[in-house]
Amino acid sequence: MIETPYLLFLGDAPDMLSSKVAQGIKDWRPEFAVGQFRMEGCKADLKLPDMTLEEAKAAGVKTLVIGVANRGGYISPAWKKVLVMALEEGFDLASGLHNLLRDEPELAAVAEATGQTLHDVRVPSVEYPIANGVKRTGKRCLAVGTDCSVGKMYTALCMEKEMRARGMNADFRATGQTGILITGNGVPLDAVIADFMAGSVEWLTPDNDADHWDLIEGQGSLFHVSYSGVTMALIHGGQPDALIVCHEPTRVHMRGLPGYQLPQLEEVRDMALTLARVANPACQVVGYSINTQHMAEDEARAYLAEVESRLGLPATDPFRFGAANLVDALEAI
Amino acid sequence: MIETPYLLFLGDAPDMLSSKVAQGIKDWRPEFAVGQFRMEGCKADLKLPDMTLEEAKAAGVKTLVIGVANRGGYISPAWKKVLVMALEEGFDLASGLHNLLRDEPELAAVAEATGQTLHDVRVPSVEYPIANGVKRTGKRCLAVGTDCSVGKMYTALCMEKEMRARGMNADFRATGQTGILITGNGVPLDAVIADFMAGSVEWLTPDNDADHWDLIEGQGSLFHVSYSGVTMALIHGGQPDALIVCHEPTRVHMRGLPGYQLPQLEEVRDMALTLARVANPACQVVGYSINTQHMAEDEARAYLAEVESRLGLPATDPFRFGAANLVDALEAI
Repeated sequence: MIETPYLLFLGDAPDMLSSKVAQGIKDWRPEFAVGQFRMEGCKADLKLPDMTLEEAKAAGVKTLVIGVANRGGYISPAWKKVLVMALEEGFDLASGLHNLLRDEPELAAVAEATGQTLHDVRVPSVEYPIANGVKRTGKRCLAVGTDCSVGKMYTALCMEKEMRARGMNADFRATGQTGILITGNGVPLDAVIADFMAGSVEWLTPDNDADHWDLIEGQGSLFHVSYSGVTMALIHGGQPDALIVCHEPTRVHMRGLPGYQLPQLEEVRDMALTLARVANPACQVVGYSINTQHMAEDEARAYLAEVESRLGLPATDPFRFGAANLVDALEAI
Repeated sequence: MIETPYLLFLGDAPDMLSSKVAQGIKDWRPEFAVGQFRMEGCKADLKLPDMTLEEAKAAGVKTLVIGVANRGGYISPAWKKVLVMALEEGFDLASGLHNLLRDEPELAAVAEATGQTLHDVRVPSVEYPIANGVKRTGKRCLAVGTDCSVGKMYTALCMEKEMRARGMNADFRATGQTGILITGNGVPLDAVIADFMAGSVEWLTPDNDADHWDLIEGQGSLFHVSYSGVTMALIHGGQPDALIVCHEPTRVHMRGLPGYQLPQLEEVRDMALTLARVANPACQVVGYSINTQHMAEDEARAYLAEVESRLGLPATDPFRFGAANLVDALEAI
């Protein structure tokens, strides 16, 4: 559990794109995003108050979050100076970089001396159990994809926002680094030991109120040969009551796998549902989330209409057109 | 790679069952099993020559393999005395115990001082790549199961034995601790980090001769909610040309999961084949391996005949009745 609120560290970000973790926190947990910290040459701007460490302290900030990824994911000497000062000022640090905070002797020593915590969200900090498959109370929705990086995290976050706006009892459950930094907790599933993957998802989505929905961030795809085992563990550990199938229609091959075609929505629907019913016989596919960022609006709307008519379930781009029809489908369960 | 041949350490084994790792090595790699080392009170006997460390040294032994599991998987003080002496005599040590050799300060210190190697086969010793899904040369057969522990390792080992007897070019590929100790190498798949599971299976079964078969040890089951992600990684990383579906007909529920029924053979066949064809469109299910150890012989033969007639493919208990029909089916591909 990362303590909130955050000061978002943008460092010397070369462009906005490199700050997408910080942008995600601001978009999805604006109440955590008190200010930004930019160094000389920073080309990113979240339109948040620029704060010194002292100002952030006065504003109640608990953690400095590295919201920027530089090429290679390493911690530069210029950054390190700021990070050491932040620890000395009494902030915790949180990072999703490949280069772990704890592996930097200077940061480790200062954290030890000051009693502050280094959160490396790429590596698990919990000893997860082996999954037991016992039915849990409360309800769960899982986003599954035709491919990696088609918008499963955004789909779950959009649905959480819509559900909370309706007064529903719902929580996004992060299973990746960005999601964990956005919400302050979760499971870095791709870094979990094989035997404990499904158990870590059970741990993440425990018994809950009967009307509560976990919106579980999906990972990988059953049809992506590099990461399908992770997807499988989410389907069985997550015990979903509802599946949303996510897709990006303009992709020409599976991400990172030239020569591998994307599956049809029908294939993902049938495969994911059959497997999900092993853990939860009541599971249903309730809708389709289409990432239309590379399509013009009329093209996007035509595509969604075609999916709805062909597959007989609601379809939307939840980031562009809202998640209302997907949430209606959940409410109908 | 564990150096062979082995002296099989049985310690103070309370019964034969506790020595099944040693028994497996003797059964499947008799050329590695030069002798056994038994301590006072040992109730197991592999019918191998009892050897002192000196005798084993003279016989060319390179590694002392802990072929016994005591309750809890720990290393007792009485064992440790022998293990230290073995290191001092110039043997490597290999173990699949939960209690790692390297975590015992005394063993670690003596190994360091003597330059001998401690092989803890429960933990990976290789940095595996992320799977790239590129088609590899040579052929691969994977055992998939209705459940865990239904005989997938024995099926692959029986097939390897039959294929080698026919002069075929075949290698068992171990993915679990016992298989690794039997063959001296492999991937401890249940201990691999999620992102690298499929890549570790690609690493284990690289390009090979066109007529070469890898017989890949299966793990878990697509229908076992605790471990299905591991099975999924084997199906995609293994790129199998042939699948053998394994089953134990007398089991009343999934192993460790009361309330979970075993799937039908047809369900496993269809699910595994559909998923396998993502990585290898030419994949076929070629036969059924039935573990009949809890059935009388006539009952077993009747069950196999029923499976063959219902599913239209060869069925056998390869350990009891031989693997000839399964190997015929592979040869026909």
